[in-house]
Amino acid sequence: MQYAHPQLNRHGELHHLLSIEGLPRDVLLHIMDTAQGFVSFGDRDVKKVPLLRGKSVFNLFFENSTRTRTTFEIAAKRLSADIFNLDIQRSSTAKGESLLDTIANLEAMDADIFVVRHSESGAPFLIARHTPDHVHVVNAGDGRHAHPTQGLLDMMTIRHYKPAFTALTVAIVGDIVHSRVARSAIHALTTLGVPEVRAVGPKTLVPGDLRSMGVRICHDISEGLRGADVVMMLRLQNERMAGGLLPSASEFNMMYGLTAERLRLARDDAIVMHPGPINRGVEIDSAVADGPQSVILPQVRFGIAVRMAVLSIVANNAA
Amino acid sequence: MQYAHPQLNRHGELHHLLSIEGLPRDVLLHIMDTAQGFVSFGDRDVKKVPLLRGKSVFNLFFENSTRTRTTFEIAAKRLSADIFNLDIQRSSTAKGESLLDTIANLEAMDADIFVVRHSESGAPFLIARHTPDHVHVVNAGDGRHAHPTQGLLDMMTIRHYKPAFTALTVAIVGDIVHSRVARSAIHALTTLGVPEVRAVGPKTLVPGDLRSMGVRICHDISEGLRGADVVMMLRLQNERMAGGLLPSASEFNMMYGLTAERLRLARDDAIVMHPGPINRGVEIDSAVADGPQSVILPQVRFGIAVRMAVLSIVANNAA
Amino acid sequence: MQYAHPQLNRHGELHHLLSIEGLPRDVLLHIMDTAQGFVSFGDRDVKKVPLLRGKSVFNLFFENSTRTRTTFEIAAKRLSADIFNLDIQRSSTAKGESLLDTIANLEAMDADIFVVRHSESGAPFLIARHTPDHVHVVNAGDGRHAHPTQGLLDMMTIRHYKPAFTALTVAIVGDIVHSRVARSAIHALTTLGVPEVRAVGPKTLVPGDLRSMGVRICHDISEGLRGADVVMMLRLQNERMAGGLLPSASEFNMMYGLTAERLRLARDDAIVMHPGPINRGVEIDSAVADGPQSVILPQVRFGIAVRMAVLSIVANNAA
Repeated sequence: MQYAHPQLNRHGELHHLLSIEGLPRDVLLHIMDTAQGFVSFGDRDVKKVPLLRGKSVFNLFFENSTRTRTTFEIAAKRLSADIFNLDIQRSSTAKGESLLDTIANLEAMDADIFVVRHSESGAPFLIARHTPDHVHVVNAGDGRHAHPTQGLLDMMTIRHYKPAFTALTVAIVGDIVHSRVARSAIHALTTLGVPEVRAVGPKTLVPGDLRSMGVRICHDISEGLRGADVVMMLRLQNERMAGGLLPSASEFNMMYGLTAERLRLARDDAIVMHPGPINRGVEIDSAVADGPQSVILPQVRFGIAVRMAVLSIVANNAA
Repeated sequence: MQYAHPQLNRHGELHHLLSIEGLPRDVLLHIMDTAQGFVSFGDRDVKKVPLLRGKSVFNLFFENSTRTRTTFEIAAKRLSADIFNLDIQRSSTAKGESLLDTIANLEAMDADIFVVRHSESGAPFLIARHTPDHVHVVNAGDGRHAHPTQGLLDMMTIRHYKPAFTALTVAIVGDIVHSRVARSAIHALTTLGVPEVRAVGPKTLVPGDLRSMGVRICHDISEGLRGADVVMMLRLQNERMAGGLLPSASEFNMMYGLTAERLRLARDDAIVMHPGPINRGVEIDSAVADGPQSVILPQVRFGIAVRMAVLSIVANNAA
Repeated sequence: MQYAHPQLNRHGELHHLLSIEGLPRDVLLHIMDTAQGFVSFGDRDVKKVPLLRGKSVFNLFFENSTRTRTTFEIAAKRLSADIFNLDIQRSSTAKGESLLDTIANLEAMDADIFVVRHSESGAPFLIARHTPDHVHVVNAGDGRHAHPTQGLLDMMTIRHYKPAFTALTVAIVGDIVHSRVARSAIHALTTLGVPEVRAVGPKTLVPGDLRSMGVRICHDISEGLRGADVVMMLRLQNERMAGGLLPSASEFNMMYGLTAERLRLARDDAIVMHPGPINRGVEIDSAVADGPQSVILPQVRFGIAVRMAVLSIVANNAA
């Protein structure tokens, strides 16, 4: 699609979901409202609607993520789509075929939606630019860039517990510089009018240029948590600690780990979020993760509803 | 679920299937009778019933077993369930997430049934203890402990050819100490009133404490087979022979392998069973495996029917 | 099945699809005509027909090929079949079970169709000989021998653009000696009455005995392409170049690579085909692969239609 906006069709409706950055507020709210209708869906006796019957959804995971892949698979099957999981590592791409040749081949198999996970930032945009009008692309995480369905499920979760976005203080804690989860959340929070978004962590992990996005930077965890309504902990990527950029797990826990004691600095009714999987005793203590303020498991449930909403919305919007 | 009985609900109905040990005779018979209705199912033109339509079944194979996984996948799809195969080795568990955190996450995705295979004895019990009331757990093999659907399909097979359990002599031959198949079969045979169950094999592989379960121990193969109505051969796990616990394949064949000649010691109409995959020329000779007394392939067919029965029974029993 | 013809039933209808060699012209045309009805299927809103509802199709890929496996999976799901992908490398076969024991076990699970890919020529024939009458075998590529659905999709593609088979000149270029794609195409073209089929390539890759199949051998690329209506490029298998049988990629490109300049030797309206995945700059230049004469992506689309046709035809033919 070659319109001015890479994600919207000529009517301003969602055609691809590539990034929360650049999505208008009413599009965000439309996805969330649609997802709301699917939240109680899991309690039904028959968890199945025919909205995507006879559609072909391809899970293209160039980077492995069993959990995210499974959530899209669940969402697609509950919408009655046919879903195809491509083992990209073992496929033609491994034989040296280019990304765009792979995509062109899958399109010729009459794909309707590509769900793309890639270690390179921007890969889903590249794919979206080269697909014909009847094919939709959903970004399931690209490099450090974006993870829009995670951002959306985070907003669903916040709205469920704290409906007044324009009165909230949200603290995002941890390795923000490497986190597509953080970037997507910041864009969504800003668009939804949250007045105070804090990025909390050591200097090596919280880039100063976030200030230009209207974010308040806190290198001190107490300052970061004080009075917050929402605490979003990020996962510490163990695989990155080897590089020296991150402190050790125990150092991180000592300086920024969310303990029950520290959580008392936030508002009494603050909620605690985490994209999972959690590192118990590293970025979050078990007492908090399993405690009454934790909404980590509701996030997972909202994640299925959001993915159902995104798939059904893009599939039903023509170019 | 926290009732006194880990597998039954307050009405004494099957809620989880974790082990044949402790299952009342009428529950065993109810599963077998339900399965009987599915046996001829494979001959139908449309092998599909809507009993589990819109239910989500998760295959959680922490230990690889393509065959058992496939049989559950077939059973679930024939019941019209949505089935999700999790590649646990590549999943979050590999990133250090705990078993119970993985399970809690999958529950939040509105799972109805977990089919669990694990190398640790007791893992399915642990999972069942931590699941909410609307989720059901089916053990697909845990360590050396239990493999209840295998035990049930063995009973289906025996009943098909030898309906009078209370008049039978059953010989189980091979590596009994390491075998969850043997343990499950012994519990089932005892519950169904089989008067003589023999455990046949070398001292290193047949533990003496089986006597307390009412089993007759035979270290001599001729004594073990003589007059038997049913001969259940176990698979010799090649990977265990390296440890020195097992004799070599050729030694085992010489001393305990089921040859046509040895089979003549059993009753003329004895049936020969094996859980598969068979090691031809090790625990069983081809003349026997492919001979008229072999019911190895019917066991496979009964296996699909039993798994359909178990999935449909637990899914329809509330806590 | 033990009739005189390994692929046809007693009524001369397709029972297995093992090889194009030996298939009568009317059977070929029947498959192509049936496939024609599925070509526009991908444009439908609901890409699903209930022709194979409740049938069990097993993808048995002893040799990895994500692309071919996916095309059969798509075809089966669009026909509403249940499809089971067996990870053969991790399965019982890896535990030393024989091919025929694996097959016998899967049959006992009430399989209707086996789709077989194997590195050994003839494996699908062996399987077909040992299956009962109600099970059908479709060859998805065996060793150097045959790849009949590829041959059929190639014929569909040619017929779409050049309907008069009996007036065509077809040039097949590349590593013909190792190519099951080439063998299947040659048999199909001959059966359909194509008067001139050329095998083009170096002496090491184009065996002289092809002459006995009525093929014209050209070691010179200009002679091979001159006046051709159809140019079928084969994939250069990089993994074979190490053996010294093949020239290097750059040598091959210089002597036989399809450049825009060379393509001018063929007829102005010649079509260019390739089974994919293409090696850009090796056997085919990007200007040709992406040019107006290329029908490489339509081949992929015809491939889905042909596989739907084959699965639905064999499933509905009794022995």
